[in-house]
Amino acid sequence: MSMVPHGGDLAAAEARWGRPAKGWLDLSTGINPMPYPVPAIDPTAWQRLPQHDRLRALLETARACYAAPADAPIVAAPGTQILIQLLPRLRPGARVAILGPTYGEHAACWAAESATVANVGSLDEAAAAEVVVLVNPNNPDGRIIGSERLLALASDLAARAGLLVVDEAFAEVTPRGSVASEAGRPGLLILRSFGKFFGLAGIRLGFALGAAAEIDRLARLLGPWAVPGPAIEIGIAALSDQGWQDEMRARLSAAADRLTDLLTAHGFADRGGTDLFRLVEHPEAARVWDRLGRAGILVRPFPDRPALLRFGLPGNDGDFVRLAAALSVEP
Amino acid sequence: MSMVPHGGDLAAAEARWGRPAKGWLDLSTGINPMPYPVPAIDPTAWQRLPQHDRLRALLETARACYAAPADAPIVAAPGTQILIQLLPRLRPGARVAILGPTYGEHAACWAAESATVANVGSLDEAAAAEVVVLVNPNNPDGRIIGSERLLALASDLAARAGLLVVDEAFAEVTPRGSVASEAGRPGLLILRSFGKFFGLAGIRLGFALGAAAEIDRLARLLGPWAVPGPAIEIGIAALSDQGWQDEMRARLSAAADRLTDLLTAHGFADRGGTDLFRLVEHPEAARVWDRLGRAGILVRPFPDRPALLRFGLPGNDGDFVRLAAALSVEP
Repeated sequence: MSMVPHGGDLAAAEARWGRPAKGWLDLSTGINPMPYPVPAIDPTAWQRLPQHDRLRALLETARACYAAPADAPIVAAPGTQILIQLLPRLRPGARVAILGPTYGEHAACWAAESATVANVGSLDEAAAAEVVVLVNPNNPDGRIIGSERLLALASDLAARAGLLVVDEAFAEVTPRGSVASEAGRPGLLILRSFGKFFGLAGIRLGFALGAAAEIDRLARLLGPWAVPGPAIEIGIAALSDQGWQDEMRARLSAAADRLTDLLTAHGFADRGGTDLFRLVEHPEAARVWDRLGRAGILVRPFPDRPALLRFGLPGNDGDFVRLAAALSVEP
Repeated sequence: MSMVPHGGDLAAAEARWGRPAKGWLDLSTGINPMPYPVPAIDPTAWQRLPQHDRLRALLETARACYAAPADAPIVAAPGTQILIQLLPRLRPGARVAILGPTYGEHAACWAAESATVANVGSLDEAAAAEVVVLVNPNNPDGRIIGSERLLALASDLAARAGLLVVDEAFAEVTPRGSVASEAGRPGLLILRSFGKFFGLAGIRLGFALGAAAEIDRLARLLGPWAVPGPAIEIGIAALSDQGWQDEMRARLSAAADRLTDLLTAHGFADRGGTDLFRLVEHPEAARVWDRLGRAGILVRPFPDRPALLRFGLPGNDGDFVRLAAALSVEP
């Protein structure tokens, strides 16, 4: 299995701290804690092979939700992760620049497929790369690179058969920063994640949009029936529910502000993030992480940057109060 | 998408024949029409990333259900199809013999990854191959190759770094023919499909069992969180429900006998199959297929063997009566 550290592993947390009496408050991911309500699922969605016409409806709904062109090539997968696993097949052995620090699986997956991977701190350092990968807004610091710069870079890369991969895993909370409206341009490949914003990471659903050559290749690598029937139905319902999405953006923005206020009041320095998570710095971050873990609250450490912690959003007043209480205990 | 013809595509059937007033009776797949009842799913299974400890529980349950050794390397995937897509990565560019005619995706997936594929009619013709692929019992004719012969072949192949792939997609209805009890031997890789026997093809769940080198590689290619949380929970419930499985084997056997009797009474010659589908021959098979389609009953034709049809099982008395009535109409 993957050697990249991730949030969300409650079994590992229990192995370290035991099972908390009040249950885990898992703030170690960027998953919305106010999930889209799973609609009733027609039994045939479980029983039959996933149906082509329903998959087509899902892809049309996703394009509309992401403001992509109606004819933009798009493919659905059982989670964005498996697309990240397959992307290196599009450019075997390429020189790849990953704009970091960022989500660790990008570098790991390219390296596992014999790419030459350079982790770079700015796009200026990526000039020699055939493939450039970035997360926008970035995880964990929320850095946003403007669309104009991204589209110019995609054009440059396309001119030499290269590829710009823009992982928009958290773009629902910064929709104006998305380049999905340009999907289909040569040299540009966009990843969208369903589970984070909709709070349904367990269903595994993600999309890639891009030029026909790349999207067709990904679809062939995934094969038929890659997305489960229930995920197709839930995806259609959620991605077409603009009212819920608009209201949720406002709620997440308010919750992120409240979290930032709480953390800064407890001596953390804000280091960015998105409305789905906040990155903070604290000289005693490792001790805070352990203290929270003992209180049943899981947050995300960064082994190579020990002063940083990433906090997901508490989903309700009770969870905010519980976090505040744990932060108030002297170490 | 895949160019291999498959059953189960109701949208394509409606494009040809229109939507039937009574709804489709889909007999075009080998999926059990008496599905395992989907248990209530804890909301956290939808919301959280799939948990490692629940995945481990699923893998242990699957090993026990398949009578595999408790330490046999095993990996779960979102459907067997994606494992079939990935298998060629285990032996790049190999000379592959596929024992056919059989499920079309095996040959297509190896060919797509630059393997040299030979479709052979008997194992004697596979002597020069580095990889041998077969489905046991075979789809569509139900041919079973004995375990002793398979294990000897796996040993031969292992001695020259080759691989025997045994796709046991329908082995639940012929459990004594399975080689899963030998999983872990070098040279032997076994595929198991969840959705067919349990009648839940929409959830997408499959397994590979084999030697550590191959299973670890497949797990790395799939990446973390490949199986959705709800599929993990449903899989644990169904694979551990021995009572349901035993009763279902008896019910499927009775239904398959009833189907065979009905088809032979209408002039079809039985050409094999399993307790999940029957293969039959009829000089007017193409006209029967069209007549059934117009009556809203979808069965599986074979474009390159036009006298054959494959019938899945009707799931209840009403569907048997409907099929009998449609077969009784003069063409």
